[in-house]
Amino acid sequence: MMNKRILVGLLHYPVYNKRKEIITTSITNLDIHDIARCAVTYDVKKYYLIHPLPAQKRLVQEVIAYWQQGYGAIYNPDRQEALKKVCVRESLEAVKDELKAEDGVELKIIVTDAQVYPRSISYVQMREIMEADTAQNYLLLFGTGWGMSKEIVEDADYVLEPIYGRGTYNHLSVRSAVAIILDRLLGEKWVEIGC
Amino acid sequence: MMNKRILVGLLHYPVYNKRKEIITTSITNLDIHDIARCAVTYDVKKYYLIHPLPAQKRLVQEVIAYWQQGYGAIYNPDRQEALKKVCVRESLEAVKDELKAEDGVELKIIVTDAQVYPRSISYVQMREIMEADTAQNYLLLFGTGWGMSKEIVEDADYVLEPIYGRGTYNHLSVRSAVAIILDRLLGEKWVEIGC
Repeated sequence: MMNKRILVGLLHYPVYNKRKEIITTSITNLDIHDIARCAVTYDVKKYYLIHPLPAQKRLVQEVIAYWQQGYGAIYNPDRQEALKKVCVRESLEAVKDELKAEDGVELKIIVTDAQVYPRSISYVQMREIMEADTAQNYLLLFGTGWGMSKEIVEDADYVLEPIYGRGTYNHLSVRSAVAIILDRLLGEKWVEIGC
Repeated sequence: MMNKRILVGLLHYPVYNKRKEIITTSITNLDIHDIARCAVTYDVKKYYLIHPLPAQKRLVQEVIAYWQQGYGAIYNPDRQEALKKVCVRESLEAVKDELKAEDGVELKIIVTDAQVYPRSISYVQMREIMEADTAQNYLLLFGTGWGMSKEIVEDADYVLEPIYGRGTYNHLSVRSAVAIILDRLLGEKWVEIGC
């Protein structure tokens, strides 16, 4: 049995805009729902929306309350279950501190990026590492906007390869990227046989 | 080289609502964008939004025009490329007729469903069939709402297994399901080794 916990984080600050300036992005309703539904499908323990502004936190709490206690809970209990995974924290540091306090184990941060880095690792390698190591917590961190700041990528424990499809186009939505990456790392077991 | 064409269809009629009544769903903006971006990533030839109402067709055409010819094309050329894949047709029959007229080859329809059927096949099997058979066109058809009508599932050439994560929860958004299924069928090559 695994003791480790796998978590998903969606970072809204610090991320880049199109001109490579650091900005804060807004929380998008479908990012909450789609990624929460993936989180429960792949048995991720928590889905952290990381945003510094209290007003955005309240907005998410209102959405969650509708589906947890409001009419949404009666209309669609499956959604209620998914949204139990969602929590909002003001920074990546706050997420790290919380998990450290709860579990007392180290948190490994896995980032994904549209770029390849010298230390980028494959999905098969990452899966093997996660399966071999049963005591750590792993946070799969995704950036919004035009991607998370380079400092966060540099500080991460692991950088996953970009998702390759069948061409050079590399502009999936973060919702699609989360779905594919959770499936590659936690879905039914597959192994790469070379292309 | 493959001659076949792989296409994605998103069906808005006939689909079920929560009470298993046949309804027509509305087209959702993010379904256009997210799935178009997946389609170009996995080199799918066309992404058909299937909707019977002309007003919904015009709405999609306005969205596409903004990203193709409007400010969106300057702001985000990647999105312009993705939206080239999108077309709206009034029915599944219209899609079949169009592809038959264009290519003169048979169209195989692959559906996905949250249920298991006696003839459901695995992603590995489907991938092998598609790779072995280079002359057919394949339409990967997805339902909106609470899933496509049972007649369409019964008429389909292939029914894929549901997506299993790590539990019993089986309520991904259609956007996430499309992303995962395109990756399993057309992404970097993996092979199942049993769970």
